[in-house]
Amino acid sequence: MEASDERPIGGASRERAVLEAIERRRRRRPRMTEERITLAHGSGGRATQALIEGLFLPELTNPLLDPLADHALFQAPEKVGPRLALSTDAFVVKPLFFPGGDIGELAVNGTVNDLAMAGARPLYLSAAFILEEGFPAADVRRVAASMAAAARRAGVAVAAADTKVVERGKADGLYVTTAGVAIVETELDLSPAAIRPGDRIVVSGTLADHGMAIMIARGELELEAEVESDTAPLHDLVRTLLSATDAVRCLRDPTRGGLATIMNELALGAEVAIVLDEAALPVKPQVLGACEILGIDPLYVANEGKLAAVVAPEAAEVAVAVLRSHPLGRDAAVVGEVRATPQGIVLLETAFGGTRVVETLVGDPLPRIC
Amino acid sequence: MEASDERPIGGASRERAVLEAIERRRRRRPRMTEERITLAHGSGGRATQALIEGLFLPELTNPLLDPLADHALFQAPEKVGPRLALSTDAFVVKPLFFPGGDIGELAVNGTVNDLAMAGARPLYLSAAFILEEGFPAADVRRVAASMAAAARRAGVAVAAADTKVVERGKADGLYVTTAGVAIVETELDLSPAAIRPGDRIVVSGTLADHGMAIMIARGELELEAEVESDTAPLHDLVRTLLSATDAVRCLRDPTRGGLATIMNELALGAEVAIVLDEAALPVKPQVLGACEILGIDPLYVANEGKLAAVVAPEAAEVAVAVLRSHPLGRDAAVVGEVRATPQGIVLLETAFGGTRVVETLVGDPLPRIC
Repeated sequence: MEASDERPIGGASRERAVLEAIERRRRRRPRMTEERITLAHGSGGRATQALIEGLFLPELTNPLLDPLADHALFQAPEKVGPRLALSTDAFVVKPLFFPGGDIGELAVNGTVNDLAMAGARPLYLSAAFILEEGFPAADVRRVAASMAAAARRAGVAVAAADTKVVERGKADGLYVTTAGVAIVETELDLSPAAIRPGDRIVVSGTLADHGMAIMIARGELELEAEVESDTAPLHDLVRTLLSATDAVRCLRDPTRGGLATIMNELALGAEVAIVLDEAALPVKPQVLGACEILGIDPLYVANEGKLAAVVAPEAAEVAVAVLRSHPLGRDAAVVGEVRATPQGIVLLETAFGGTRVVETLVGDPLPRIC
Repeated sequence: MEASDERPIGGASRERAVLEAIERRRRRRPRMTEERITLAHGSGGRATQALIEGLFLPELTNPLLDPLADHALFQAPEKVGPRLALSTDAFVVKPLFFPGGDIGELAVNGTVNDLAMAGARPLYLSAAFILEEGFPAADVRRVAASMAAAARRAGVAVAAADTKVVERGKADGLYVTTAGVAIVETELDLSPAAIRPGDRIVVSGTLADHGMAIMIARGELELEAEVESDTAPLHDLVRTLLSATDAVRCLRDPTRGGLATIMNELALGAEVAIVLDEAALPVKPQVLGACEILGIDPLYVANEGKLAAVVAPEAAEVAVAVLRSHPLGRDAAVVGEVRATPQGIVLLETAFGGTRVVETLVGDPLPRIC
């Protein structure tokens, strides 16, 4: 993976390296320079940022979209009724069926989770299918049944749907896009702006399960580890956490681009530094083994049933305990902390006592992971 | 087009033919019998119904989705705040750019219109893009700019977005799925259940413009008529109509499958007959000419900027006058009426004094029209 500048650094050279990283970032301020779309534009990493911030955002700019959160918050114009949240994701995962889930379950959980990160309880989903001519009807049914089961589990209804068909060779079996509306059930403003130096970074469980499950399921690798996707709806875990403490600053689900990319977004958005502790990162042994064999850093691998929470320092222990009390948070851990400087930078303190800069993902070693 | 049983009928043979049509419909009660997806499953016609009612609905069934309207109506759980509407559509139109519009404008207007048919004012849209590797960035920008312009025109913001990239040969340039949330601004229950015998069918303008513009733009035909898509946002036209009369029973936008398919849905949903007057159907001369050359019935061709309204008989004249006062309704006309029997059947009184049954579209002569 080309994602990170893998240089152990310390002392004066460490400071210089960090300053260089800031300068590199400034130079690389997302701009869409390529003339054609590449797979990297779908990675969730720097190319995706360039596409979104350099191309879509200048056109579509508005106060709800501009924060580039995974959801938009709004209220009916007369300011009556509760705050609502809106979110959407397209799902193009390959293969469609994989250990631990399938595209239908992923499509429900993915949008439920984007909404849950706003502290919102999902009410209704929409689903739009693009089907490839010749795709087996039995597989459409299997995906629909899986969506229905996932929706029941998450307590939402698929309230609106649409289906289009394209010619053979103009899709890859089935793509599905979900959107969701949710009711915001917290008074908290869960945004990067709430993050403060000293805050702790908590993750709800093991990292990289989904991405590695997909990689292995593709069968392109000489690797047969037993790794299952972690796809799961996180709204109840979020509800449990927020009912135990109001010292939660911000919530994100580290999907495409992994924890590294999410942490970079928060560090940039809050103008703080985030320091992760490599030894504290929970990763299943078989996932770590697969990552090592493939030379992939689990920090960059997608999760589909995990959240990262930034919490006030005094609430970190409670947050971990509460998360661990929930079936979806058993492996929760404090994995890092927020510092005032260097602003906009994510650092990793490695198990060997070094420190390195954790960059946003560059390129896309794992296309079509969700 | 195989869509209709083109048999002029009258008197006793007419009655028999109608009874046969009812029996055929009963036998053909939507069931998904094909083992593989065909282009016809994307037509909006009978195969689409079979896919949706025979496959998706049994899995995803719930009170909001079951009516199979173009939108779902809901209110926040505490019943505070206004009624809201949710809708989604995937757009796979080919070509992406065509006379009168492009996929971006279509994607905004399409969802705005689905919501407008609930008497709802669109508030926020989401947009999810599936991009094909190698697609020109300039064309992405053009689509984004077009969506932004359409959103401004419709008074909505694209509040949430997502982008995925798939390999070359796994898409066709760009697909986009929009979803929308709207606030319902009418007390009326605009549903087929409100339709009564004697009601009139009003359309807001000329039929078949969008579908024929796409057909011609593909350049596969030896035909060079000047036909532009009618893509337009209809929420303001709906607002104008509903503020002039509360005798509107039901609104639909006749997109895929055309007016014929929408009328069949209403006739079935309301358990009434609908009789259309061929001589009253507004169709531009060049569109009619193109349809005749291609042997296509304009009743089955998609519209993207027209509505069909069912109105009480005493309100028909007012409705037409009000629609004509609006730039998007200048060619509005009464085109038919509702009768008690034969239930579930749409009839066309032809210009030559005959009557034929207008069936739901079968097959898909116009794939990827939206």
